[in-house]
Amino acid sequence: MDNYIVADIGGTQIRVALFSKGKIEPLKVRKIRTRDKEQTPLERLITLFKEVLADTDHVRAICVAVPGFIDAENGIIIDANNIPGWVNYPIRQLLAEHFSIPILIGNDANLAALGEWRYGAGQGHHHLLYLTISTGIGGGVILNDQLLIGARGLAAEFGHITVIPEGPTCSCGQRGHLEAVASGTAIARWVQEKIALGYPSLLEGKPVISARDVAEAARQGDELALRAMSRAGTYIGYAIADFLHLFNPSIVILGGGVSTAGPLLIDPLRTAILERIMDRAYLNNLTITTAQLGDNAGLVGALVLAESGVEP
Amino acid sequence: MDNYIVADIGGTQIRVALFSKGKIEPLKVRKIRTRDKEQTPLERLITLFKEVLADTDHVRAICVAVPGFIDAENGIIIDANNIPGWVNYPIRQLLAEHFSIPILIGNDANLAALGEWRYGAGQGHHHLLYLTISTGIGGGVILNDQLLIGARGLAAEFGHITVIPEGPTCSCGQRGHLEAVASGTAIARWVQEKIALGYPSLLEGKPVISARDVAEAARQGDELALRAMSRAGTYIGYAIADFLHLFNPSIVILGGGVSTAGPLLIDPLRTAILERIMDRAYLNNLTITTAQLGDNAGLVGALVLAESGVEP
Repeated sequence: MDNYIVADIGGTQIRVALFSKGKIEPLKVRKIRTRDKEQTPLERLITLFKEVLADTDHVRAICVAVPGFIDAENGIIIDANNIPGWVNYPIRQLLAEHFSIPILIGNDANLAALGEWRYGAGQGHHHLLYLTISTGIGGGVILNDQLLIGARGLAAEFGHITVIPEGPTCSCGQRGHLEAVASGTAIARWVQEKIALGYPSLLEGKPVISARDVAEAARQGDELALRAMSRAGTYIGYAIADFLHLFNPSIVILGGGVSTAGPLLIDPLRTAILERIMDRAYLNNLTITTAQLGDNAGLVGALVLAESGVEP
Repeated sequence: MDNYIVADIGGTQIRVALFSKGKIEPLKVRKIRTRDKEQTPLERLITLFKEVLADTDHVRAICVAVPGFIDAENGIIIDANNIPGWVNYPIRQLLAEHFSIPILIGNDANLAALGEWRYGAGQGHHHLLYLTISTGIGGGVILNDQLLIGARGLAAEFGHITVIPEGPTCSCGQRGHLEAVASGTAIARWVQEKIALGYPSLLEGKPVISARDVAEAARQGDELALRAMSRAGTYIGYAIADFLHLFNPSIVILGGGVSTAGPLLIDPLRTAILERIMDRAYLNNLTITTAQLGDNAGLVGALVLAESGVEP
């Protein structure tokens, strides 16, 4: 049986999983904190890989899902958002010094799209958009059954299109990007700002507010929290209307922590799409749904890439 | 020698050309006005096809480039912008009653992208964006050497993304779309509105102002006309920055009548991209250039589709 080892590297934790070909239930999963005083993230990753490899045969490939900009062809991380020092970082070459197995890398949100398409909510679709809404906003696109990565692997940055010209500053330094307006971070910040201005809310007095807190307060009927979720859903919907005009997919899949807020976010999102779509033809046979693979989407997507990227 | 007959159907005129396989210089071109009291546009198209077919052998396919929404797979025009009555119009079936040759249809701007990619400014590129800026704004995308058409043939509507929320009304009914802000029509309207408000301009008193008039006045140093061109270029540049984040092409090709204004439009466009790009990585090895095939791009693109879409 062919096996694959995949990793999903986040700012907080590294997860490594062992999969058998075509099975999305991992045989093993190991987790470790990304940052540590003793070891670099790469050393920690190598340690986990060795641990999983130790008692496994027939490992055909290793695939690493990384946040940020990736030059997949050359195996280089151009810039990993949350991992200090991973700038122009030749991760494939560095791993290849330790493992004599084919090594692939990919952007985590792109790979999550691939996972949802092959094994999740997008099965059977040929044109798919996947948006992940959590701390930031990212995504991936499948067109004609192919992952869109673009000329240099930088495509599908859904969080980085302008929705409010001169709007709030984005993590990338630009202003008014979707990520700066509707990500989990942006939702929490908007509520904090309104509370500071004197708007009443159940969340008043809470020292740190997260998007999860806002969703919970909204569920309890808190008016400010409801407005915050609705505002985020509306802007995501406006952006999706533009994406439909550009990509014309048959399915839009919403993933990431914020999407688990469900109707609080997705009802206003649907309304916003209806309001902004230029022609109903884009909505014929269009599915808008939530992701099925949850936190495992990146790992499963890395499996898909590993399976497809390796000669049998 | 294999031959192909292609048509480019505009709101004003229909052009039909005869090509030999792989040669972009047409053997014949015929033009006719689209509207006529005696004949429908379809009748006029059929007349031209018969005329060209009469003394030609080995015609392998007919391909028709149409403005508007196309269901290419089923050979149906969903809505041709400027041709009254062409709504859910089964053009392939209607033509098939007259010609026993394979018939293909495509969106004119999509086909122009295909033409520029195969025989024009985009040769050798695998990821290409083509924007046509004339009366309206449209375009086409090549990704991994494939034309992006989307699930229902509606992709790459570059004119219909929001650049000014609550901005001017677009031809599609939405507000603040790129087409409503930066097309030839929008440029001319903006200048007319400013003149009506009392802004001085060489164009004052002219009963009808076109984008060509504005470009000419700008060349003569007219300040209002210069501002109009610069404003359009800036918004197109802002939109292109977003498109780069989404598609990550290696070339952006600007076509259509307004693009012939050259630096008046394209210098501010480049400045706007630089201002709005989230990471310089998108600009590495990126070419921004003007189209090479001019008014023939649609015809040549139809040739490319005809050549590729027909069994040898």
